[in-house]
Amino acid sequence: MKFSVFSRLGYTAHAAGTLVLNIHALNTWKQSVINEEFWLEPYINYNQFELPQGEKRLVRFDVNEYIPNISATYQATVDNCYEVNDFSYATETHVSALDSSVLPYLNPSRYCESDKLYRMAHNMFGHISNPFQQVLTLTGWINKNVQYLSGSTNSQTSAFNTVTEQAGVCRDFAHLGIALCRALTIPARYFTGYAYQLYPADFHACFEAFLNGKWVLFDATGLVPLNGFVKIATGFDAADSAVANIFGDVMFNSMEVSCELADTCFEPFFYKQDEFLGITYL
Amino acid sequence: MKFSVFSRLGYTAHAAGTLVLNIHALNTWKQSVINEEFWLEPYINYNQFELPQGEKRLVRFDVNEYIPNISATYQATVDNCYEVNDFSYATETHVSALDSSVLPYLNPSRYCESDKLYRMAHNMFGHISNPFQQVLTLTGWINKNVQYLSGSTNSQTSAFNTVTEQAGVCRDFAHLGIALCRALTIPARYFTGYAYQLYPADFHACFEAFLNGKWVLFDATGLVPLNGFVKIATGFDAADSAVANIFGDVMFNSMEVSCELADTCFEPFFYKQDEFLGITYL
Amino acid sequence: MKFSVFSRLGYTAHAAGTLVLNIHALNTWKQSVINEEFWLEPYINYNQFELPQGEKRLVRFDVNEYIPNISATYQATVDNCYEVNDFSYATETHVSALDSSVLPYLNPSRYCESDKLYRMAHNMFGHISNPFQQVLTLTGWINKNVQYLSGSTNSQTSAFNTVTEQAGVCRDFAHLGIALCRALTIPARYFTGYAYQLYPADFHACFEAFLNGKWVLFDATGLVPLNGFVKIATGFDAADSAVANIFGDVMFNSMEVSCELADTCFEPFFYKQDEFLGITYL
Amino acid sequence: MKFSVFSRLGYTAHAAGTLVLNIHALNTWKQSVINEEFWLEPYINYNQFELPQGEKRLVRFDVNEYIPNISATYQATVDNCYEVNDFSYATETHVSALDSSVLPYLNPSRYCESDKLYRMAHNMFGHISNPFQQVLTLTGWINKNVQYLSGSTNSQTSAFNTVTEQAGVCRDFAHLGIALCRALTIPARYFTGYAYQLYPADFHACFEAFLNGKWVLFDATGLVPLNGFVKIATGFDAADSAVANIFGDVMFNSMEVSCELADTCFEPFFYKQDEFLGITYL
Repeated sequence: MKFSVFSRLGYTAHAAGTLVLNIHALNTWKQSVINEEFWLEPYINYNQFELPQGEKRLVRFDVNEYIPNISATYQATVDNCYEVNDFSYATETHVSALDSSVLPYLNPSRYCESDKLYRMAHNMFGHISNPFQQVLTLTGWINKNVQYLSGSTNSQTSAFNTVTEQAGVCRDFAHLGIALCRALTIPARYFTGYAYQLYPADFHACFEAFLNGKWVLFDATGLVPLNGFVKIATGFDAADSAVANIFGDVMFNSMEVSCELADTCFEPFFYKQDEFLGITYL
Repeated sequence: MKFSVFSRLGYTAHAAGTLVLNIHALNTWKQSVINEEFWLEPYINYNQFELPQGEKRLVRFDVNEYIPNISATYQATVDNCYEVNDFSYATETHVSALDSSVLPYLNPSRYCESDKLYRMAHNMFGHISNPFQQVLTLTGWINKNVQYLSGSTNSQTSAFNTVTEQAGVCRDFAHLGIALCRALTIPARYFTGYAYQLYPADFHACFEAFLNGKWVLFDATGLVPLNGFVKIATGFDAADSAVANIFGDVMFNSMEVSCELADTCFEPFFYKQDEFLGITYL
Repeated sequence: MKFSVFSRLGYTAHAAGTLVLNIHALNTWKQSVINEEFWLEPYINYNQFELPQGEKRLVRFDVNEYIPNISATYQATVDNCYEVNDFSYATETHVSALDSSVLPYLNPSRYCESDKLYRMAHNMFGHISNPFQQVLTLTGWINKNVQYLSGSTNSQTSAFNTVTEQAGVCRDFAHLGIALCRALTIPARYFTGYAYQLYPADFHACFEAFLNGKWVLFDATGLVPLNGFVKIATGFDAADSAVANIFGDVMFNSMEVSCELADTCFEPFFYKQDEFLGITYL
Repeated sequence: MKFSVFSRLGYTAHAAGTLVLNIHALNTWKQSVINEEFWLEPYINYNQFELPQGEKRLVRFDVNEYIPNISATYQATVDNCYEVNDFSYATETHVSALDSSVLPYLNPSRYCESDKLYRMAHNMFGHISNPFQQVLTLTGWINKNVQYLSGSTNSQTSAFNTVTEQAGVCRDFAHLGIALCRALTIPARYFTGYAYQLYPADFHACFEAFLNGKWVLFDATGLVPLNGFVKIATGFDAADSAVANIFGDVMFNSMEVSCELADTCFEPFFYKQDEFLGITYL
């Protein structure tokens, strides 16, 4: 499936600082970046690199003086690929069978304090034996109980807050989903991407749960089809997967994002409560 | 209903300090303290007084030196009285109709952050129109989901924690009940007392909700009959109604509590999920 | 000292609701309300009353339907009186000597979790023997370390957060001051009022500490002279002393506040770090 | 420097479960494990592996039934090596110059919410220009203000709590040090090891800060010489570097740890407040 993605981030540097941006589409064996461009205005030299585990492509640049308007623009055409698997017979994850690269996604993290949600997760979802159904059910519970409300949370809000405060944006929905999965001993990680048919257009965050050897995508917001994503990054949570990290006296100003279909047909795919088909980006 | 109550608290004073104890049975127009005794060993002069709003009878004393074993003993025979009312037709509390003495029990307090539980309370219990049934249902939810587990919480644990951590002791059950009520605009207050048939014997905490002009008792722990209480105090939460406040280098050592029936018959009374009879201590 | 105070609060009622406003000047034996007016536009019937402990004069009214613009206006001329006392020889508060009406102001409350600040308060201020100097020093520490920053906090922010996050508005400064005092076994309470020479004009919050039998005013923000206040209320913290409590679907829109001198002369009074003169409103 | 290390952990399995232990000495190019043994009693098959980034050597095993006493024993002789560098002329870390493998250690993590400590860290330590001195000073501040108190914290306590509560054990001291460093844009990571001359013997936790291209060891507890460590693991915080992770109904029972010198001489090395010599394990 081909998509044209575009993002432009605007900043004002009041003094020297460094920005690290996380907006490049991943280039994996099944997500091909057919073409891409990234540029800064005014011209600033930048450094593009990947993190060791290969799940992020970052751009980093310094500003050394006052610059009222810096814009960072990325555009790409990406051809990606996903598979749909049937999890009707999914079985519980055995910790002892997990690959060592998956194991860290059972740990609590900055925004996903799974250690505090253990009893709650087991009280609410512990009786469900099929782990796909567990994640589907907890995703449904989040969707039903947490209100999508711009501005209701901030960069310090964590899953522990969202359980009770029950309002948030996509990152809060994702954090709560991840925390509940980990509390149920299901490895889970944060997923950010460009999302087709997201209105208003924006970067989107959701999560992946590790089920029967696959990282299966879930989105508690229900805002977009699950097959319309271009993957930017996966990580523990927004602490290591934010769109931008700013060091120094630089302020975020503006953002423009788009994700358009570059293919002829698109059949939106959503999960249904009694179906066990899960989507995995490759 | 007559009860004989007894409590003995043991302390070690390492240096000078002050203790304020909250273990006397209230003496109200319908709870008569027939006889009572309070003494300190070794002999220390103390001051017994009531707080302005008349909902606590406190004892206060200084220790001025190292004393390895201080024991404070209270025993009393109390005749109290409660009424059982039918709340089948209970209607929503109108803030504008509340007496000014009741209004403060709508505010969040140290351990009952009702301001943070607003959405959750409404999502879970907002659809129930009879407020007695609302409180009964939320009490049932707490009872079902929070595990009674000695040592699982400490003096800093609040309702906001308990919503998610789902373990605690009687004070945590009470705090969560109060916070949920207040979030639903139902005035609620902390209630401490001696409780008949509590095993192991201890002071007990539960809560009162203000419904149709009455303070109705609820106990999310379900550990004791609701008609076996001798009221010690009511207040906002454990911050103003703890059994003891210690100032200075004095350590709590030991506690002994009992509450025995001094009457011939006792018919345990518990709420049932589909019955609308509520108990009010007078 | 005479002041003319004025406030106008604007609301939109989307549906039925109740408002409780806390904007009337207190009428005490030394703060005389010479004249005052309160009115609602459009005309709505209201109820004006005092809380039992006499530290707030509240106004309460219902709205029963959609009203796009409700304005509540209060204006008054107030003659108040304060004394300045020398606390050079102030001595530590003995809990056992406190009047029972003062004792509750040692308890932690919703926004002032003094129980969690015990070690910190003692580490930082425990070595100071004069309690006036303790409060002056802790007020100075707050002033130096917490940044006054509109919009940096919200209605859930408490003293525990502010210790570390070090930004806030007047209520956050007051909460932290109160929490530190209580942790040092100094009774402390929230104080709201109209403040002369506050720019931009607004309601103001600061706090009182109980020293040598007097409630002494402190203001960690340092924004206004300490002798330019007209007292509206005192209480445990913003949970029981907010300017307005809203029940139902009513939104706050706008606010206008003023406090003008109605006397001929005004000598601004601020504390100095090495002077032990404290101000008490009567 | 050669050390003999030993640890024995005891568990009771009430039902099936999985344990992941993190007690093996790291085997790096400068820390040689000369000999080692690990065994389980009763015999249980286990799997020993490294995490992808090579900073932990884990052991994992299943228990499939009730076993009243499981003991896991590790003993090794390790020859390690450290260097002492002079940081008198250390200069500020530039984010843009950091290797991509170091960058993640600037992110907040489960127990090190550096995002919430930004203002505090800058208010207290921002004026110090030499980053080695910054870390030394903040370590000294922690040592002076946080009380080492067994049992004062639990597995949910984070740096944000410790700032204010000012009591904890080694992991809490480490978390606070890490969080303050990251808030100052100094990469920092958790370090666990066997520690010579720690009384009572136990696993120890401290932290490393990334200064002038080196990971420099700091220990806010001041309990042990800095040159007496055998490194077990580094990580983001205790969430990914705990001694043991337990999945299922298995209870920790007992622990025995020792770390003895296997060399002829040992000169204890501690930092001094005005010296700029820092230790790095290789």
